[in-house]
Amino acid sequence: MVKEINIGLLGLGTVGSGVVTIIENHQDRLMHQIGCPVRVSKVLVRNLEKERTITINTDLLTTNPDDIIDNSEIDIVVEVIGGIEDTKDLILRALKNKKHVVTANKDLIALHGAELLTTAIENKCDLFYEASVAGGIPILRGLTEGLASDRITKMMGIVNGTTNFILTKMTQEGRDYDSVLKEAQKLGFAESDPTADVEGFDAARKMAILATLGFSMNIDLNDISVKGISSITSEDIEYAMNFGYIMKLIGLAQREGDMVSVTVEPMLLPHIHPLASVHNEYNAVFVTGEAVGETMFYGPGAGSLPTATSVVSDLVAVMKNMQIGVNGRMNINPQLEKSLLTDEQLESKYFLRIVVKDEIGVFSQITSLFTKEEVSLEKILQHPSGIADSSEIIIVTHKANKKSFNNIINTLNEISSVIDIKGAYPIVGEDKK
Amino acid sequence: MVKEINIGLLGLGTVGSGVVTIIENHQDRLMHQIGCPVRVSKVLVRNLEKERTITINTDLLTTNPDDIIDNSEIDIVVEVIGGIEDTKDLILRALKNKKHVVTANKDLIALHGAELLTTAIENKCDLFYEASVAGGIPILRGLTEGLASDRITKMMGIVNGTTNFILTKMTQEGRDYDSVLKEAQKLGFAESDPTADVEGFDAARKMAILATLGFSMNIDLNDISVKGISSITSEDIEYAMNFGYIMKLIGLAQREGDMVSVTVEPMLLPHIHPLASVHNEYNAVFVTGEAVGETMFYGPGAGSLPTATSVVSDLVAVMKNMQIGVNGRMNINPQLEKSLLTDEQLESKYFLRIVVKDEIGVFSQITSLFTKEEVSLEKILQHPSGIADSSEIIIVTHKANKKSFNNIINTLNEISSVIDIKGAYPIVGEDKK
Repeated sequence: MVKEINIGLLGLGTVGSGVVTIIENHQDRLMHQIGCPVRVSKVLVRNLEKERTITINTDLLTTNPDDIIDNSEIDIVVEVIGGIEDTKDLILRALKNKKHVVTANKDLIALHGAELLTTAIENKCDLFYEASVAGGIPILRGLTEGLASDRITKMMGIVNGTTNFILTKMTQEGRDYDSVLKEAQKLGFAESDPTADVEGFDAARKMAILATLGFSMNIDLNDISVKGISSITSEDIEYAMNFGYIMKLIGLAQREGDMVSVTVEPMLLPHIHPLASVHNEYNAVFVTGEAVGETMFYGPGAGSLPTATSVVSDLVAVMKNMQIGVNGRMNINPQLEKSLLTDEQLESKYFLRIVVKDEIGVFSQITSLFTKEEVSLEKILQHPSGIADSSEIIIVTHKANKKSFNNIINTLNEISSVIDIKGAYPIVGEDKK
Repeated sequence: MVKEINIGLLGLGTVGSGVVTIIENHQDRLMHQIGCPVRVSKVLVRNLEKERTITINTDLLTTNPDDIIDNSEIDIVVEVIGGIEDTKDLILRALKNKKHVVTANKDLIALHGAELLTTAIENKCDLFYEASVAGGIPILRGLTEGLASDRITKMMGIVNGTTNFILTKMTQEGRDYDSVLKEAQKLGFAESDPTADVEGFDAARKMAILATLGFSMNIDLNDISVKGISSITSEDIEYAMNFGYIMKLIGLAQREGDMVSVTVEPMLLPHIHPLASVHNEYNAVFVTGEAVGETMFYGPGAGSLPTATSVVSDLVAVMKNMQIGVNGRMNINPQLEKSLLTDEQLESKYFLRIVVKDEIGVFSQITSLFTKEEVSLEKILQHPSGIADSSEIIIVTHKANKKSFNNIINTLNEISSVIDIKGAYPIVGEDKK
């Protein structure tokens, strides 16, 4: 049994400050759970003089990472500075120095998770990263432990708070993308350069982590097709709502037999689907397991204390493992060969909105395209568009494979009577309620 | 390290059969996680000759519980027979024989959890009961592990599938309680004697388990005020919907400072609240923690494989603990003195629907009652009722304490101009979205 556990903190921003606060406020409870005192004994900062929102003994601060990484008194390194290559080197060194690591760094784990985990296991160290996906939601623990005896077939995630905030406002207030983005930037829910969020890259990194864990396959970012929300109009959202659908940026990871697929793109959900009620900056992951059926994990996707709570949960797990001497047994190395589903194998219903010339024969010309690709239609609605001499056609297909649907879109783009393809979205979550 | 783990199963009904199926289908994965083979080596049944939905070696079956409880080869006893006193004796004997126990028995845990856990810890045995609350949802693990470093202030649970099925149908189809209850009975979602479900007793047992764990206080069934759904009319539901609210049977466990309160009763939720999208037989627990904020766990509340999945998750936890020799360290003995909030201390908004005589002065007579109890009104609507010479008044209050609101109801009952109090429900979940 250990007498005292010393933590070295890389970074004292919002999350790092949260970690310090929680450890201080919960000393008694942590002691009760772990059986020994826990203290933050060194903190890497950029600037020793900076004013901080929390009070911390300035003797603990350092600007030299070696004071933590090479410090023999430090048992666990908590990494909340972000960054990729330099941070990776620090973590690798920490692991080789037999320090356990807890990180909230999704970019690092999405890109270098496999290498870092291998190094951790070689050095009998724990490497946990609960906070890297959906900040305050214990989804990774849920996948590895709660569903330990199940086989996961599908994960649908709202894993980016910025885009969910924007889509919620567009949906509830009928506003345009640009105006809501500006509000989100003002409120601090979107970065001044919002690209990583609104183009879906951030969500893709989180889905890579979830899919790697949930499917026991090494899913890279390159395996994920990604589309963002910046071209969604309030009209798309309104028309979809008229058909009973809610627009969300969904990370969809699905398995068919031994093959998997991961995509991130705007999708439509039935309005009574539990994911449709995930509003504003909240995150949720809807998991389907062969045995358990449908479960959902919901909570804050970011924020100082929620993310810090996940970090401290990981810390508690590491410390319990230390007390009983079983670190470095993470059972999360991919066990299965990666095998990706092709577009022919991916099936979905689709929602399509197009503007066509108001001419005789156009309607049948369009529908015959669907027949040719063997895609049948569930609903079809034609009405005058706002533009002179043109009509708007809204189509909801039955289940169709992605290749056929893409063929239809490509052909529609080439037909002279088609003025514009306004929006095309997969419809998901209708199998069950 | 152990060479083989032997499980004795008490009961081979739907859940027991699910456990056998999962252990057979996931042999490889279990082996990978635990490091040794796992087998079900003895099964207690009532009738050896009964035809079963699964194929099982009949040599494993016995009608004598001693073949499991006193069997030195059995490491873990899985209890899925239900029952209270006899089952408690079996489990106590198993624990004293140094066998770990996994149970799905909410009644047993709600009534005798403290005694059983104490015995388990004395004998260095694990006693896990994830499946006892919300079958397929890893909520207990979520509370103890995921939120290990947080302080839980509130839990709102839809923890009874039968009542949620009934209320969902009444809400979505505008049907009466009696007609939906009959359908639920036909579909197997309600028992032929539905009392335990529809009167809220089943939900109360689950809330007792959740509150004991989440608040570290020994909450008994007697501490919980319980009201069922059998007097809810489709009119109540419809009027509430017109005000933007959805009716659910909610188990509400809340903490103020060091004091707590647990109630189970029909409550109204804003229609955009995540719990409002929990439909049919599904369960969900919405947890508020000081640090993490709002999280929700959603999934199937019952069913063979979902419940069996939770049982096997517990089994995996027990077996991992066996491999590293750390059983019997459940950290769930209540640490805090129980202290219950009084009605004066409990605050809520309320929705009230009454029918009054259509006479001069009645309206002001009613509203003056509220003024006297210092309850202010957010919305008030008066319109003709279906009954001659009478009006219906619908009131939504601002936050009021329960005692004041009950005083108002009692006085309304005594006033001659009040014909009927149609419905009175707390409104919850409006603090945040």
